[in-house]
Amino acid sequence: MKYPSAPEIAAAAWLNTDSPLSMRALRGRVVMLHAFQMLCPACVTRATPQASAVADCFADEDFQLIGLHTVFEHHRVMNPDALRVYVAEFQLQFPIAIDQPAENSPVPVTMARLELQGTPSTVLVDRTGNIRFSHFGILSDMQLGAMVGQLLAE
Amino acid sequence: MKYPSAPEIAAAAWLNTDSPLSMRALRGRVVMLHAFQMLCPACVTRATPQASAVADCFADEDFQLIGLHTVFEHHRVMNPDALRVYVAEFQLQFPIAIDQPAENSPVPVTMARLELQGTPSTVLVDRTGNIRFSHFGILSDMQLGAMVGQLLAE
Amino acid sequence: MKYPSAPEIAAAAWLNTDSPLSMRALRGRVVMLHAFQMLCPACVTRATPQASAVADCFADEDFQLIGLHTVFEHHRVMNPDALRVYVAEFQLQFPIAIDQPAENSPVPVTMARLELQGTPSTVLVDRTGNIRFSHFGILSDMQLGAMVGQLLAE
Amino acid sequence: MKYPSAPEIAAAAWLNTDSPLSMRALRGRVVMLHAFQMLCPACVTRATPQASAVADCFADEDFQLIGLHTVFEHHRVMNPDALRVYVAEFQLQFPIAIDQPAENSPVPVTMARLELQGTPSTVLVDRTGNIRFSHFGILSDMQLGAMVGQLLAE
Repeated sequence: MKYPSAPEIAAAAWLNTDSPLSMRALRGRVVMLHAFQMLCPACVTRATPQASAVADCFADEDFQLIGLHTVFEHHRVMNPDALRVYVAEFQLQFPIAIDQPAENSPVPVTMARLELQGTPSTVLVDRTGNIRFSHFGILSDMQLGAMVGQLLAE
Repeated sequence: MKYPSAPEIAAAAWLNTDSPLSMRALRGRVVMLHAFQMLCPACVTRATPQASAVADCFADEDFQLIGLHTVFEHHRVMNPDALRVYVAEFQLQFPIAIDQPAENSPVPVTMARLELQGTPSTVLVDRTGNIRFSHFGILSDMQLGAMVGQLLAE
Repeated sequence: MKYPSAPEIAAAAWLNTDSPLSMRALRGRVVMLHAFQMLCPACVTRATPQASAVADCFADEDFQLIGLHTVFEHHRVMNPDALRVYVAEFQLQFPIAIDQPAENSPVPVTMARLELQGTPSTVLVDRTGNIRFSHFGILSDMQLGAMVGQLLAE
Repeated sequence: MKYPSAPEIAAAAWLNTDSPLSMRALRGRVVMLHAFQMLCPACVTRATPQASAVADCFADEDFQLIGLHTVFEHHRVMNPDALRVYVAEFQLQFPIAIDQPAENSPVPVTMARLELQGTPSTVLVDRTGNIRFSHFGILSDMQLGAMVGQLLAE
């Protein structure tokens, strides 16, 4: 089986990191991309807290969580200032990229590259930089833990 | 014991209702005021869903839930447009007043009148229009149900 | 409306109380009967913890919780010795009556008097000793709190 | 690092399986032993439902869950007849061994071989039959999923 290579993240800005993260530089590590919107209920109440739990669970492993704020609706309200307040109030600790707005589409650049259908979405990238799993919706903690564990064991 | 009379709500605007609600016109009913901010984590994940559950639980009783968006921080981000998106996305059904901004204070007018300390806050008003309970923080479903039930039985 | 009077409890034995409780002696208080079986999953995981929470919530009120071990199946396994271990291990604190086995029926005496359909069942008795509510199955914390609160306010 | 080999299960009886399971015959598969007692609260409410969820999560993998009823207290009450009622009422589907009572100790034979400290305990055995993890207490779903996932990837 041949897996697609994970595209680079096109970010308008980064939060919670001094320097931008690059998929190329993360080769050798398992990467989880958590695509969310700050006013998406399933993100706020379930997927984003779960993403934080994944980061805690694998803190001692070759693992990197990256949040991706993929605003494809209500762009004016979910702007970078609003996101910064949201991230501070909800005490999110992990690096977050603000997905680069596209010129001719409401769907931002990285979201389009990843062919995501909505938020929340979870993308798992293996140590070689290939996308091994991409899912729109909610996953159980056990299922998500199992997949990350399997990729870490490779 | 003498209870304070519930002050009127000073609203910049109302959501989810055709006409403004008035404490005076609600005499005879038990009223619960749910003071919240759209980016307050304890509101979003716990108190606001609980408020919706209270409205459902007492839908057939002389009971009225009123949301009160008491923005006392990050005013620019938690503006009326943002609130409307939040209310639509989270499918909140109950009437919500946007608390009137004060001229010389970050604390809005009704929040000051009610002497609330923060969000989420719960205020219970009896059938005679008196404030019987005011609490900053989280309550258990059972405790909140019990208090509303007791006021309805009066 | 006329409500039925709560029948007395016929108990083979009592746990967690020095002397048997009597419905007559409890006049003036609101009483909740929690009918359960120690190997009934919905009891063990939901209704019995909820009953303990009710007792805590109304500890300062004129309220009494009574557990009723209404064994109507697997009598040999859910015997008094087993119940005592269960109550100790699960740290149940409230008074529990072992419902008196019937001579010609698997359904014990008090369960038959109360016309309960199964476990868990919740029976609420008002201050005058009348049954105001009887339910087979699970209730929400809010709904149960509301009903107890209403009866306490009478 | 050298891991201990998983000992065979000494069972007085098996439930939910036509023939006894053997650690030797399970070589090549990842095995999770779930040690529990039917009246242990943390087992009943948390660890045993979690064990069922693990079996569901890895149903399509080279994975086997085995329950181990390690009665080390209240032996008379937690007898095989009581366990059968418990397993039927709680609808447990996975194979369960009743740990062989010891002659001179309250601790049964397999529990002693595995040097378990109490219930619930979780033991993970890799494809080569070695014990890779043994834990007394509760694990998060994510942590447990991750460990099983890692062992499956070996």
